[in-house]
Amino acid sequence: MDHLTFRYELAQQLRVDSVRCSSAAGSGHPTSSMSAADLLAALLDGHLRLDFDHPDDPRNDHLIFSKGHASPLLYSCLKAVGAIDDAELMTFREFGSRVEGHPTPVLPWVDVATGSLGQGLPIGVGLALAGQRLDRLPYRVWVLCGDSEMAEGSVWEALEHAGFAQLDNLIALVDVNRLGQTGQTMHGWDLDAYAARAQAAGWRVLEIDGHDPEQIETALKDAEDGDGRPVAVLAATKKGRGVAEVEDRPGFHGKALVHPEEAIQELGGVRDLRVTPAKPTAQAEPHVFEVRGGGLPAFEPGTEVATRKAYGEALRALGDRRGDVVALDGEVSNSTFSEMFRDAHPDRYFEMYIAEQQMVAAAVGMQVRGWRPFASTFAAFLTRAYDFIRMAAVSRADLCLAGSHAGVAIGEDGPSQMALEDLAALRAVHGSTVLYPCDANQTVRLTAAMADRPGVNYLRTSRGATRVIYAPDEEFPVGGSRVVRDGDDVTLVGAGITLHEALHAAEILAPEGIRARVIDLYSIKPVDAATLRRAAAETRGLVTAEDHWPEGGLGETVLSALAGVGAPVRVLAVRVMPGSGTPAELLGQAGIDAASIAAEARELLKAHR
Amino acid sequence: MDHLTFRYELAQQLRVDSVRCSSAAGSGHPTSSMSAADLLAALLDGHLRLDFDHPDDPRNDHLIFSKGHASPLLYSCLKAVGAIDDAELMTFREFGSRVEGHPTPVLPWVDVATGSLGQGLPIGVGLALAGQRLDRLPYRVWVLCGDSEMAEGSVWEALEHAGFAQLDNLIALVDVNRLGQTGQTMHGWDLDAYAARAQAAGWRVLEIDGHDPEQIETALKDAEDGDGRPVAVLAATKKGRGVAEVEDRPGFHGKALVHPEEAIQELGGVRDLRVTPAKPTAQAEPHVFEVRGGGLPAFEPGTEVATRKAYGEALRALGDRRGDVVALDGEVSNSTFSEMFRDAHPDRYFEMYIAEQQMVAAAVGMQVRGWRPFASTFAAFLTRAYDFIRMAAVSRADLCLAGSHAGVAIGEDGPSQMALEDLAALRAVHGSTVLYPCDANQTVRLTAAMADRPGVNYLRTSRGATRVIYAPDEEFPVGGSRVVRDGDDVTLVGAGITLHEALHAAEILAPEGIRARVIDLYSIKPVDAATLRRAAAETRGLVTAEDHWPEGGLGETVLSALAGVGAPVRVLAVRVMPGSGTPAELLGQAGIDAASIAAEARELLKAHR
Repeated sequence: MDHLTFRYELAQQLRVDSVRCSSAAGSGHPTSSMSAADLLAALLDGHLRLDFDHPDDPRNDHLIFSKGHASPLLYSCLKAVGAIDDAELMTFREFGSRVEGHPTPVLPWVDVATGSLGQGLPIGVGLALAGQRLDRLPYRVWVLCGDSEMAEGSVWEALEHAGFAQLDNLIALVDVNRLGQTGQTMHGWDLDAYAARAQAAGWRVLEIDGHDPEQIETALKDAEDGDGRPVAVLAATKKGRGVAEVEDRPGFHGKALVHPEEAIQELGGVRDLRVTPAKPTAQAEPHVFEVRGGGLPAFEPGTEVATRKAYGEALRALGDRRGDVVALDGEVSNSTFSEMFRDAHPDRYFEMYIAEQQMVAAAVGMQVRGWRPFASTFAAFLTRAYDFIRMAAVSRADLCLAGSHAGVAIGEDGPSQMALEDLAALRAVHGSTVLYPCDANQTVRLTAAMADRPGVNYLRTSRGATRVIYAPDEEFPVGGSRVVRDGDDVTLVGAGITLHEALHAAEILAPEGIRARVIDLYSIKPVDAATLRRAAAETRGLVTAEDHWPEGGLGETVLSALAGVGAPVRVLAVRVMPGSGTPAELLGQAGIDAASIAAEARELLKAHR
Repeated sequence: MDHLTFRYELAQQLRVDSVRCSSAAGSGHPTSSMSAADLLAALLDGHLRLDFDHPDDPRNDHLIFSKGHASPLLYSCLKAVGAIDDAELMTFREFGSRVEGHPTPVLPWVDVATGSLGQGLPIGVGLALAGQRLDRLPYRVWVLCGDSEMAEGSVWEALEHAGFAQLDNLIALVDVNRLGQTGQTMHGWDLDAYAARAQAAGWRVLEIDGHDPEQIETALKDAEDGDGRPVAVLAATKKGRGVAEVEDRPGFHGKALVHPEEAIQELGGVRDLRVTPAKPTAQAEPHVFEVRGGGLPAFEPGTEVATRKAYGEALRALGDRRGDVVALDGEVSNSTFSEMFRDAHPDRYFEMYIAEQQMVAAAVGMQVRGWRPFASTFAAFLTRAYDFIRMAAVSRADLCLAGSHAGVAIGEDGPSQMALEDLAALRAVHGSTVLYPCDANQTVRLTAAMADRPGVNYLRTSRGATRVIYAPDEEFPVGGSRVVRDGDDVTLVGAGITLHEALHAAEILAPEGIRARVIDLYSIKPVDAATLRRAAAETRGLVTAEDHWPEGGLGETVLSALAGVGAPVRVLAVRVMPGSGTPAELLGQAGIDAASIAAEARELLKAHR
């Protein structure tokens, strides 16, 4: 059969298999798959350059289903290329199956998890940036987008950044099937509406009938001719295409078909066509950044240095030592001090402007290719990207986040700039590591440690200068803690800013004959339960202090570690909405300064003689 | 002096006062204020219709500083209109002052807190929607935007929605001063770049020199002539305008001027001009929606009903009883069941499409005018709007959020759709209420209770049907809990899905002679510590079970309530990344099903005889 007939038959097979697997599962999104089948058939047959036998080949193209609910289509494609067999396809949505309800990287051909809409395109921007500036390989990044998800601001961040960065290795295939989950999208089939937006952002736009094989072929070929602009193929399609009972009809989103056998007949029956996508032709190897080595920065004990500044210096030094380390920032690099990395390693620094979702998404995209991204902004503004951080864990992504300006200790700028929920939010990310250093040397060690850890790593830094209390050669293992001062009357637990307040509180208590043990809980997750339990056993109780709301932070971490242990624990945290003020005034108002910690320790000892 | 001269002098005064207050504070953003001074002088003098003596007048225009860091300019405006005096202005950023580092509603003329960029415009969309469809009053919503924040996807969500909804009562004044915090923005002074984007979204665009009083006057006048489109006044300005040392120079973001006295001289010295903005001219009162009353829905004990469905019915019934209740949804109303409200009260329902940030922002905007918004989507996707929820608390906003599809119990759709961090995230919002019902009648009561509570209220609902175990007339006070089954051997604590598993576990244990007490902890925050402490005292230990990661959820809530109490507590939670599967398979894998709870209870009793 001729080329276009083959593609038609292949597309019908993708539809049939989408119907079959979702019907076997009794759920899923066959109609959302059927609209894009012609696009994918053409992509597999002649455009995608991906060696499915070697999914880790660095020269491979990347294919991201931003509309992750079209997973039946993706898995049908994987069957058509021989990556999975029909039996596995038919385990769709079963317990233990790799072909999950929405794609995840448990399948080696899936780079990242999708299913939270509007994430695939910004992650694709990250991969395209990696291709352009890091790997320096001519691979392309193909992203299948839905039209509903174009309403997500993160998609516009992606359009904006891709246009700005001239990512002509990025091609978005927008499946404009008109129907969202509950009804028509904002723009229906008005391709011009999408075109105007994408063009305004600097994209090249191709409007086609997404079911016309010739128009698809012309568009994909055209899209491959890079002219410095990313390309959006806007394809008008019909949801449920090919089955009259559901085609272009509302009310059939996210449901298996009611009459699958009839649908399969209408689509021409089951086929077993195979398609072999092209392999990458480039011979080049990924670019390797030369490094000059060097030690980690060291700070003189007794001096005062902000941990955010120590982070910047540590990151620059890591860049000196490791070519895989890259940095991204949300246009606050002079506050987070990632500017130190930027100035030393401009080729590996990415200014993401004030678009935190795109920043985290780009980091997720870059780590797909083995780069180790460090993304930084004010800790408060990482909340903007929380869905992306959550999904990064589902993507099994390995990356590092640094949030500066933690807590009321930032002072005058006020609550909009104060991270007071970041520990809770980042702890509640599967497999995450949460670190909170109190001095510059500790910051350096923890920054370096993060670079080797899997999963989502988070470092919380402080705005103001704090005293360097540790020697530069001290080790701070992740999952450890440090008894900074010994004592057997009461234990004071702090981290970051409050570690210094706790130390000061111990000094206040000493002349009163109260010997306070002080624990630096720099590793919030994983936590050193053993040291906390020993303190609970050896002292009369614990007072924890944190520059954070009481929920989900340091105090509850300690309570978790001591679950079932009967020791008295008093949790000091920020309980009133702060305003402006000096750091000292605000720490005092919150009741987490040295005087408050000392007072609580006295109360505890009075209550538990 | 003539009109334009007066405005020039007024603008200079606003600049001088911005310099003065930030210099007194030693920090702040004078240069970001100076660029927009001419725009604000013109707005106050002849365009804004806001009775500063009666900030609660429903007919007032609204003025939102989306670039909240230009707070010195805002406060200088408040002084110029006589709302605050010079002495208060000069308390800028002091502890206890109302003129905080970034604006908050502790000032009665400030509707919402800003300072997290890209939030003011989407909140303005909410206010404009309220004016158009709820209040039905001709007030205008003026939003001062920075150019850096145009990179935020949330701004594009706002542009998109405002254009779609034809909000010609919304006027964005974009202060294109070219310089961000660290350098030039993506587009510099390329007004056409912004114009193309806004026009593509259906906005009317006016490009002007933002320091030319005549061009400003023409544009503001023009902007007031509504033609069905929102208006963007794109004003090319210079950061630090009027002071040569800083004008249009990088490196002066967010800093008090080095030579304030010289700057004040250069700006023509201190003035004490007063300006009296126009008062609203409309005579109309806000629209009141007629209601037909009626009772709350009731469900037959023993039947099976999903709590998400009960939420939908409760919300519809609330709408029958109260005209102030409005609903918003992120294009999943047939999943959250807000469609029941939509069908009954279409005038008060807002389809926000798949743009969760805009959805929450719109809710924040609507509650400014006294409406009680209920915004719903999958609980997992509320993470997309976490920064907006965080800031809603700083805004002292009163609103209700409903998140459906909690936890692994959703089954086949997989982890991208499972909320497993929502309890942690929402608990860590200042002043929040977090509710998690287990049956339909309880859901109804809690939904109704939310409507009267201040702050951010969150209701977590489940996808699958659960047995109705409570009678329709039972009360469930917020902050309470319910001992569903008595027993004095061990206590099982659950909520939502796991309450049913805990009940089943108690039945499993009963024939073994183990009498388990079962507590329904439907109010996660505030929590009923007394009942938990009584259980700790009266039984040999507690087993908690939650369909959530272990961090920051139900288990840590219980541990917090029992801080210092020595009772054994075992926390069962989701600890492995789930895939697809049936709800039963996934609850089992997570170790939070009845069998797992029973096994843990046996272990606990064995360890603590």
